[in-house]
Amino acid sequence: MRVLLTGFEPFGGSAVNPSWQAVRLAEAAPPEGVSLTTALLPVLFHDAIARLRAAVEESGADVVICVGQAGGRAGMTVERVAVNLDDARIPDNKGVQPVDEPVVAGGPAAYFSTLPVKACVAAVRDAGLPASVSHTAGTYLCNHVFYGLMHHLESGRPGRRGGFVHVPYLPEQVPDGDKPSMPARSVAEALTAIVSAAVTTTEDLKETGGALH
Amino acid sequence: MRVLLTGFEPFGGSAVNPSWQAVRLAEAAPPEGVSLTTALLPVLFHDAIARLRAAVEESGADVVICVGQAGGRAGMTVERVAVNLDDARIPDNKGVQPVDEPVVAGGPAAYFSTLPVKACVAAVRDAGLPASVSHTAGTYLCNHVFYGLMHHLESGRPGRRGGFVHVPYLPEQVPDGDKPSMPARSVAEALTAIVSAAVTTTEDLKETGGALH
Amino acid sequence: MRVLLTGFEPFGGSAVNPSWQAVRLAEAAPPEGVSLTTALLPVLFHDAIARLRAAVEESGADVVICVGQAGGRAGMTVERVAVNLDDARIPDNKGVQPVDEPVVAGGPAAYFSTLPVKACVAAVRDAGLPASVSHTAGTYLCNHVFYGLMHHLESGRPGRRGGFVHVPYLPEQVPDGDKPSMPARSVAEALTAIVSAAVTTTEDLKETGGALH
Amino acid sequence: MRVLLTGFEPFGGSAVNPSWQAVRLAEAAPPEGVSLTTALLPVLFHDAIARLRAAVEESGADVVICVGQAGGRAGMTVERVAVNLDDARIPDNKGVQPVDEPVVAGGPAAYFSTLPVKACVAAVRDAGLPASVSHTAGTYLCNHVFYGLMHHLESGRPGRRGGFVHVPYLPEQVPDGDKPSMPARSVAEALTAIVSAAVTTTEDLKETGGALH
Repeated sequence: MRVLLTGFEPFGGSAVNPSWQAVRLAEAAPPEGVSLTTALLPVLFHDAIARLRAAVEESGADVVICVGQAGGRAGMTVERVAVNLDDARIPDNKGVQPVDEPVVAGGPAAYFSTLPVKACVAAVRDAGLPASVSHTAGTYLCNHVFYGLMHHLESGRPGRRGGFVHVPYLPEQVPDGDKPSMPARSVAEALTAIVSAAVTTTEDLKETGGALH
Repeated sequence: MRVLLTGFEPFGGSAVNPSWQAVRLAEAAPPEGVSLTTALLPVLFHDAIARLRAAVEESGADVVICVGQAGGRAGMTVERVAVNLDDARIPDNKGVQPVDEPVVAGGPAAYFSTLPVKACVAAVRDAGLPASVSHTAGTYLCNHVFYGLMHHLESGRPGRRGGFVHVPYLPEQVPDGDKPSMPARSVAEALTAIVSAAVTTTEDLKETGGALH
Repeated sequence: MRVLLTGFEPFGGSAVNPSWQAVRLAEAAPPEGVSLTTALLPVLFHDAIARLRAAVEESGADVVICVGQAGGRAGMTVERVAVNLDDARIPDNKGVQPVDEPVVAGGPAAYFSTLPVKACVAAVRDAGLPASVSHTAGTYLCNHVFYGLMHHLESGRPGRRGGFVHVPYLPEQVPDGDKPSMPARSVAEALTAIVSAAVTTTEDLKETGGALH
Repeated sequence: MRVLLTGFEPFGGSAVNPSWQAVRLAEAAPPEGVSLTTALLPVLFHDAIARLRAAVEESGADVVICVGQAGGRAGMTVERVAVNLDDARIPDNKGVQPVDEPVVAGGPAAYFSTLPVKACVAAVRDAGLPASVSHTAGTYLCNHVFYGLMHHLESGRPGRRGGFVHVPYLPEQVPDGDKPSMPARSVAEALTAIVSAAVTTTEDLKETGGALH
């Protein structure tokens, strides 16, 4: 199985982005039987999707997992749904800041992840690391890329699956510990567990991962 | 203008539900020019939607705003998107606990609120109370009813608008203050501000209410 | 019984301080049998204690309750212990910023509140509002004044009791609801309940209000 | 220099206690020039202090650092002050649950840590891990032992220093990531940095580590 993992470049004044650090660490030790490719995405509206689509086609990946930073979350969060909405709280790395615009004009309101999200969460927990399902990827670059990915895969690429995973801050991003963090090595281990679950699970677990609100 | 406000009965072991308390208080003092109707929804999958659809038709409401409790949130949150997913962390009031089932089989993945969500948030803040846009209503009864509402309104009821608003715990629900709360009277004031904004705003404000994740 | 309630002026760039707003509201409706005096303290190291000592002597108060803002806490918190330490994260209103200095040179490491802290917490909860005991008043002006108060009362004023209460942000201080808040009127009701408990309780309740850490 | 590090056994229904796991890992790789001894303390009021005093005497330690779990905190927290108060929210491992009793009858209200707390925090951050000063160790076993330690050291053991450090949950203790965590190996690295700072720092850094409340 061919798997494409993507991470983002830094943004919002940070010097690092944990998503790309962890993706690079995960690339160095792929699960057995998995051919792993990675791509670094820019924090630029639309350019990020163009880069992603090119990487999806170049890699011929069966499974695509995009990874991004969710500063403030304490565990890995496997995103369930991408919405057709850009509403940027801060500008992207070239100063573009869309407000209330669709990711894809005329596209459906949302796409669900086609990863086995419950199995992915279970795999991370089995590895001794915290994880849960998330029902919003926000309205910035992460959701933008997630929606762009699903729109691409659902438009004539049957059998190819994809989704999005959010990761916590790195410890060095929160020196006074006012927000949770996870070391890059732990994030990489969790990503490896997610990749394994994604390629081996044909039918997702039927157990709740829901949120009351 | 005719407006329908709905609240929920208590659930999950609570003796009260702030949504219904606040809706009743708001009903007692409607904004000028607004004819306000209210309905109490059961915490029951599908029955809640049936009750809501009946109330929508009986009231002839131009604007429908469903209200529910989001325990742990500190301000009013105006929901932006309803997803076609039931994933119940706890059973409903008759013990039904759907996991990974659609709200409406064959329905679209999501509907966006047709309320002017940014104007609603601004109106609450102008009233001196905290508010923000939320991009997930969860996967329990609140999202279920929100999706059911939008599916109903979008299926042949042009010009009728609707959405969902989450409210914090009441102070008496969190006696030790380990979670945020808002008095019922403040919630009612905020709902009144939202109703006013909803009926008077024809084009939503173009200002960010986005989330990075 | 004569009770002195004190609040603080605004600081740190805020236009308001909920402590003084609530103290003024509480002053307008004292519990029966209580003669209530109030004083506004400056956010200035040492000047605040001097002003407090003068108010204590002028008022002849039997019970002194100083009140301050604890932005981010969701309920009323009755402080249990004042420590002999100034360590200012931000400068005071005249730019003074002591780091690791004693409040009173040669004073003991700490004083415990002589209010019936458990009874005060119970009284607030009985009024339907959230409260708990806190075991740190920080190392800024609130702890400074609390320590200064206890040092004054414990130095030759037998039978006169005192303590400190922290209050949440006002709703208008957190427009987007990213932190908890409590309306000034609710805070005032809670303060009134605390005053009543403080003057009528001779022996504190024996029930846990402890913290694991 | 001889250093004693202590950890606690599990409590409150947990199968593990991160403090002991991390202390054992730290013991395996002491800083150069440091002779490191460890002791496991029971979660029992008074017995824990007796065990600690024995370990202090047996080890002949110049520096004693007790370590405990603070579930919910996101970084290492170096405690600044121990208070003479037991107020147990839950029973200890033999069912004892003191409420509002002194740790040491007739002892002072509090003792300050004699570790260079600011230098310890700085050392952890230099190691790329999150840390801050804390001004409350709670009112359960951690504060109990911390107070017992300081009372012992301050009663006739000049030149011997001691303090307390709280550590986050382990990742496996929070499988759904609703609370922050830190891997045992990271905690051990942070403890090693603290030990190094404690033995090499003769005068603490003069920089703020204060809290507004």
